[in-house]
Amino acid sequence: MVFSGGQDSTTCLYWAKNKFERVVALSFLYGQKHQQEVEYAAAIARKAGVEFHVKDVSFIGKLGQNALTDSSMAMDQEKPADNVPNTFVPGRNLFFLSIAAVFARELGIRHLVTGVSQTDFSGYPDCRDSFIKSLNVTLNLALDDEFVIHTPLMWIDKAATWALADQLGVLDIIRHETITCYNGIPGDGCGHCPACKLRREGYEKYLAEKSNQK
Amino acid sequence: MVFSGGQDSTTCLYWAKNKFERVVALSFLYGQKHQQEVEYAAAIARKAGVEFHVKDVSFIGKLGQNALTDSSMAMDQEKPADNVPNTFVPGRNLFFLSIAAVFARELGIRHLVTGVSQTDFSGYPDCRDSFIKSLNVTLNLALDDEFVIHTPLMWIDKAATWALADQLGVLDIIRHETITCYNGIPGDGCGHCPACKLRREGYEKYLAEKSNQK
Repeated sequence: MVFSGGQDSTTCLYWAKNKFERVVALSFLYGQKHQQEVEYAAAIARKAGVEFHVKDVSFIGKLGQNALTDSSMAMDQEKPADNVPNTFVPGRNLFFLSIAAVFARELGIRHLVTGVSQTDFSGYPDCRDSFIKSLNVTLNLALDDEFVIHTPLMWIDKAATWALADQLGVLDIIRHETITCYNGIPGDGCGHCPACKLRREGYEKYLAEKSNQK
Repeated sequence: MVFSGGQDSTTCLYWAKNKFERVVALSFLYGQKHQQEVEYAAAIARKAGVEFHVKDVSFIGKLGQNALTDSSMAMDQEKPADNVPNTFVPGRNLFFLSIAAVFARELGIRHLVTGVSQTDFSGYPDCRDSFIKSLNVTLNLALDDEFVIHTPLMWIDKAATWALADQLGVLDIIRHETITCYNGIPGDGCGHCPACKLRREGYEKYLAEKSNQK
């Protein structure tokens, strides 16, 4: 599991716990401004009874300019029309999944899980399905192995991700203990950054759908 | 240019100088036992009049057990029948080329050059043509860009690599100033490790072919 302790990857963590006998969560220090997200991730993994590891890959934050690792840059609140948002850390998912694959190989594991979603991809090219599938082939060729990358959230929106958390019996854990906010505030977050907005709108949509079904 | 200062990448460096207006060489500290290879690389790049950069990616050496970064392991002298040699650093070319791509993108460069060769691939899966082509697609999808990975040595053997160096007018530089040896000795090297053997046999074959043509 590529695991950040956010809503998406925590939902996937419980999804993976349901599906596999052994789950290993892997978090990254990549120079992000809010490094305490790794502590939240560790706490969530501990509570879930899942093995937890951290890799320091701070070189990633230094490779390309971006607002998640550079304190002097203000974060784009919306995707610019002509470019990726400046919160795009170039190559982040490429490096995370590649490192996860090498690490998994050492542990004798061949299933990789990531919480990326094309539905809510916010302009990040490395959240798209075609990228993940191409990377899966590349990893198999690079390491002469047979990895399977699982993306339980690829085609669902944030409301459906909340629904999945509810089905898995972890709605409250996801709501209160995960951290998605670009300003580093757990649970409901700062409320105004793009990540908080997306998360809250999904939550409200899910609650409305749920009450309509009753 | 992914550049190690070895025979192959130095030959490619001069190949690239012939082909492109601006060449940027990128070397890596990945926890290799013989870190002085980076100093040889810097000296070769300086002499060639090529911009030179180093990235510290020592996390790579710690991800998977291998004899190039672990001093307690003896190096396989030949490829074992049932496995990759223990000098395989899992994911090395995957990380090198991915980092080169992100770095190139920042510089406005879209051509990447690597000295990998399927002909003399010594059992390393990440030197194969199918891996490089798959990675090219993956990088383009990951970064929403249009990189072109060049592999001038992919289908030629070591003798033909010496021939290319000779055509480029740099046979002596390659012979005396590059470092290929697993034991960290420049030029003709230790003479008995697999890399030295491959290099010497190629050189002798090239000289024999050359004198036959006269």
